[in-house]
Amino acid sequence: MLETFQPENIKQYTKSNLNVLCDELRSVIYQTVMQCGGHLASNLGAVESTVALFYVFDFPTDKIVFDVGHQCYPYKLLTGRYSRFHTLRSAGGISGFPKRNESVYDTYDTGHAGTSVSAAIGLAKARDLKGEKHAVIAYIGDGSFNNGLVYEALNSLKILNTKILIVLNDNGMSISPTVGGMSDILSDIKNGEKAENIRLLESFGLQYVGVKDGNDLEEMVDAFNHAKEMLSQSSVLLHIVTKKGKGYEFSEEHPTNTHGVPPVGSPKEKEYSEVLGETLCELAANDKNITVVSAAMKEALGLTDFFAKYPERAFDVGICEENASVLCAAMAAGGLKPYYAIYSTFLQRAFDEIIHDVCAQDMPVTFCIDRAGISGADGETHQGVFDLSYLSLIPNLTIAVPKDTEELKKMLAFSATYSHPLAIRYPRSGKVLFPNINEEISVGKWEYVYKSDKIKCAKATVLAVGERSLIIAGKVLKSLQKKGLSFDVVNARFVKPLDIEFLKTVQSETLITIEDNVFLGGFGSMVNGELTRMQKKCTLKNFAYRDEFIPQGKVADLQSEYGVSCVELEDYLTEIL
Amino acid sequence: MLETFQPENIKQYTKSNLNVLCDELRSVIYQTVMQCGGHLASNLGAVESTVALFYVFDFPTDKIVFDVGHQCYPYKLLTGRYSRFHTLRSAGGISGFPKRNESVYDTYDTGHAGTSVSAAIGLAKARDLKGEKHAVIAYIGDGSFNNGLVYEALNSLKILNTKILIVLNDNGMSISPTVGGMSDILSDIKNGEKAENIRLLESFGLQYVGVKDGNDLEEMVDAFNHAKEMLSQSSVLLHIVTKKGKGYEFSEEHPTNTHGVPPVGSPKEKEYSEVLGETLCELAANDKNITVVSAAMKEALGLTDFFAKYPERAFDVGICEENASVLCAAMAAGGLKPYYAIYSTFLQRAFDEIIHDVCAQDMPVTFCIDRAGISGADGETHQGVFDLSYLSLIPNLTIAVPKDTEELKKMLAFSATYSHPLAIRYPRSGKVLFPNINEEISVGKWEYVYKSDKIKCAKATVLAVGERSLIIAGKVLKSLQKKGLSFDVVNARFVKPLDIEFLKTVQSETLITIEDNVFLGGFGSMVNGELTRMQKKCTLKNFAYRDEFIPQGKVADLQSEYGVSCVELEDYLTEIL
Repeated sequence: MLETFQPENIKQYTKSNLNVLCDELRSVIYQTVMQCGGHLASNLGAVESTVALFYVFDFPTDKIVFDVGHQCYPYKLLTGRYSRFHTLRSAGGISGFPKRNESVYDTYDTGHAGTSVSAAIGLAKARDLKGEKHAVIAYIGDGSFNNGLVYEALNSLKILNTKILIVLNDNGMSISPTVGGMSDILSDIKNGEKAENIRLLESFGLQYVGVKDGNDLEEMVDAFNHAKEMLSQSSVLLHIVTKKGKGYEFSEEHPTNTHGVPPVGSPKEKEYSEVLGETLCELAANDKNITVVSAAMKEALGLTDFFAKYPERAFDVGICEENASVLCAAMAAGGLKPYYAIYSTFLQRAFDEIIHDVCAQDMPVTFCIDRAGISGADGETHQGVFDLSYLSLIPNLTIAVPKDTEELKKMLAFSATYSHPLAIRYPRSGKVLFPNINEEISVGKWEYVYKSDKIKCAKATVLAVGERSLIIAGKVLKSLQKKGLSFDVVNARFVKPLDIEFLKTVQSETLITIEDNVFLGGFGSMVNGELTRMQKKCTLKNFAYRDEFIPQGKVADLQSEYGVSCVELEDYLTEIL
Repeated sequence: MLETFQPENIKQYTKSNLNVLCDELRSVIYQTVMQCGGHLASNLGAVESTVALFYVFDFPTDKIVFDVGHQCYPYKLLTGRYSRFHTLRSAGGISGFPKRNESVYDTYDTGHAGTSVSAAIGLAKARDLKGEKHAVIAYIGDGSFNNGLVYEALNSLKILNTKILIVLNDNGMSISPTVGGMSDILSDIKNGEKAENIRLLESFGLQYVGVKDGNDLEEMVDAFNHAKEMLSQSSVLLHIVTKKGKGYEFSEEHPTNTHGVPPVGSPKEKEYSEVLGETLCELAANDKNITVVSAAMKEALGLTDFFAKYPERAFDVGICEENASVLCAAMAAGGLKPYYAIYSTFLQRAFDEIIHDVCAQDMPVTFCIDRAGISGADGETHQGVFDLSYLSLIPNLTIAVPKDTEELKKMLAFSATYSHPLAIRYPRSGKVLFPNINEEISVGKWEYVYKSDKIKCAKATVLAVGERSLIIAGKVLKSLQKKGLSFDVVNARFVKPLDIEFLKTVQSETLITIEDNVFLGGFGSMVNGELTRMQKKCTLKNFAYRDEFIPQGKVADLQSEYGVSCVELEDYLTEIL
């Protein structure tokens, strides 16, 4: 039935047709995610509400914005993407998030939390000014509903004076269980308590409708019909209670583990996050002042054990990246030693607070930045390729990049004694490289990991930042050594400050930078600036990503395609050596 | 009385002593602001509540965080800074904002809106973990209370499980009157309606206390005593209603005009904001799709007339910089042509939304970025010296910098036909430079504003970004011409994309960049990267601000002190020409 589904025909479907459709959706989602990886539990929970939306509204005339996008698979399958759905999250395939360039049914791209209500209001205002009449819907989970941007949007609903439908899909979970005051407010409403909470929502200009079982198709159809009528009066908040993972027992029982899942049979690699968690536990045993803050991702960041072991010093504040940053700055102002663990792309949300609260006050906050560099299958909105650039422009901030998981341990030990803002950034999977190298961490000091001649510099020196860059340099070195050529390789473990002394004294004719970041404002750009400042006569060649948004694909393929390629590095070196 | 005031003695004061103290505070604040410029109306409204705070609490043992800091003058005057208060906002003088490095009474630096509640929670948690017992207070205006960060903080109050006192100073104003749903909720409470709104606040873990006249000293002392007792149970929200501008009739009646005031007798200069407002009005007359969004600053941004003329297309969403950015992206997705006017430093708050919502979707949103470059007397938290860096790393974004107010008009006319994200950045005061130059705006095209020889390039070419840089180049040119030396000057009006064709063909031995921005990641850094990429053989010299937070002072002095100095440029040119 899904294979031949046309949105315009759904209104003729019988109730049993609709239920079959739901079953098929669930089955395709499950099978595809097992094969391609992706977001499972949240999509399973959104099946009935999505089918009901199609039954009541007319897409693409009516518009919908999915917050984050972890609930858009059923919508994608119902809008002409069934036949290509097996390409989910692969290069050139169907995105795991809404994408305007993929379908006219996708009105607005998402990926980061909390944008949907603002976006729906903006789209609705455009509709009004253009004299159009369609509905605009924001579909948002209760995890995102904690985000400050949602509050700002609700606050502006009356100002923009327009009408939207907010579907609040309340499954009680972010990736971890949803936490905080708003979550309690919603719980009270769900439990039939504190009806005044509803009137609060009305103060923002919203009529409230509650649905007890958002996985009941008939109930959802009735609710959407009702909401559609109410929209003639004012905006509507339709609060639906659903089961994350619905329909698959294991997923229902383990919604955190089945939020995002890898393809079945993926090899288990050591992750930097595990090292982070273990090391912070060790450090915290000796330093009572160490605290850890996370924004709704403690499991993915390797912090489950820390939270269990030190509950009084571990804080998951929900999807509130800005608040987490200010909390850390203030804890440091109060004499604590806070660690803020977060994905690179989500830290962008706290950019102003990193500047204004942490660095302008020179607070000893350590940012542990995971999923840095290209992150792969999640695409444009999740690549962590900007952090070296947006962090390096901030005064007082030291930026370190470990060469491997062993060096992350050392950097964390170093961080415990460091009394200024520090950012440590690393990708997901980790290795141990050059285990025989055992230099101590000292601010702004690089180290040779390969030197062809003990005394003299080679004709070319590669300055590589982080594991992925060092792996590329190492591969090319091996290959060229077979041809009798060689060059020096440096672990440029501090991006800020740069190792000025090294740059002054290095004698190679050519310096080459490699990084897992965009070129603009990144490591290569900083080295460039420093060489110009010191008027050093040498040739510089930069390998970094070019100035484009990088789509989904395999990490190594994307690295190569967007500017950091073994082949190009080898060609370049072959030419100059 | 103020002259010899000691916080520890206030508890012996009689009621009439306290009232005299209030009068003196008001008088010193008024006189100082008339002389030095600063924030008048908000500080006048905060006098009684601040004196009452000292009467009830013990600073600096107890800690207070002032949100934004526009209400901290009475606090500063009561904490040992009376004798130096005449240096307010001048180089080396008393800051207009809380500063830890100025006094032990200043616990946490602020400047941007909405950080105080998070900061108070962080400080309180540090207190708890360290086994200390003092009170922690956040003092916040109703304008900031709209900000999403405050919501995130409230949401986390139960998670952090600590106790703070929030003083919500409700004068009904941001810089403009406060707007939106939360403002309505507070109004209802003030008017004695909808007691359920109070219970909502209780859901976040707060006890509510209302004070009808926050400018009544006795009422405030009682309220703080009461709140202090309640703090043994849980956090408290003390909602006080005050009069912005209290005590000065003109200020009470014109709180927007007397929010921030210049020193008496300051010459009135033409401002870029006026040109922005006039030009957008003209453009909007011919293009129904043009909309304007502001985050609580429409007057300062020159948009008062636009809001009056096109109320259906002008939106002030309050201090919600992120929401404003997403609204613009979505309006563009819906076919409108939005302009988002904002100060450079506040746009940092929307960094993620510029990337994720505007640029990743390649939406035709125009950012009109005022107070770019060094802004002067407001100091570290208000300098607009990072924008060229944090914007240039974002794919799909074009960055333009007008050479003068005339060129801003042209750039805005250009923007109306441009279908991609565009940032136009400019300082506050504007001039008309080189009025005889009349080139059309074309993306990524620079122009000569002075060329010593019609055909050949001079030995040195200065690439200057924006008015202030061109003024410096012009001054040095005049001076060197007297010595028979000359160089070429280019208006590098696009920072992104760079004029690659120009860089390829320019024949000067030396290129010099000047910008009103930090060096790291800015214009000079980008030119550097491009010259390296094209392997061009020429000497490059960059004038930009060094990697430090820039304190308060006069714009020209700070420019010179932090790396963009006429003297150094002239010395350098004299040496190489």
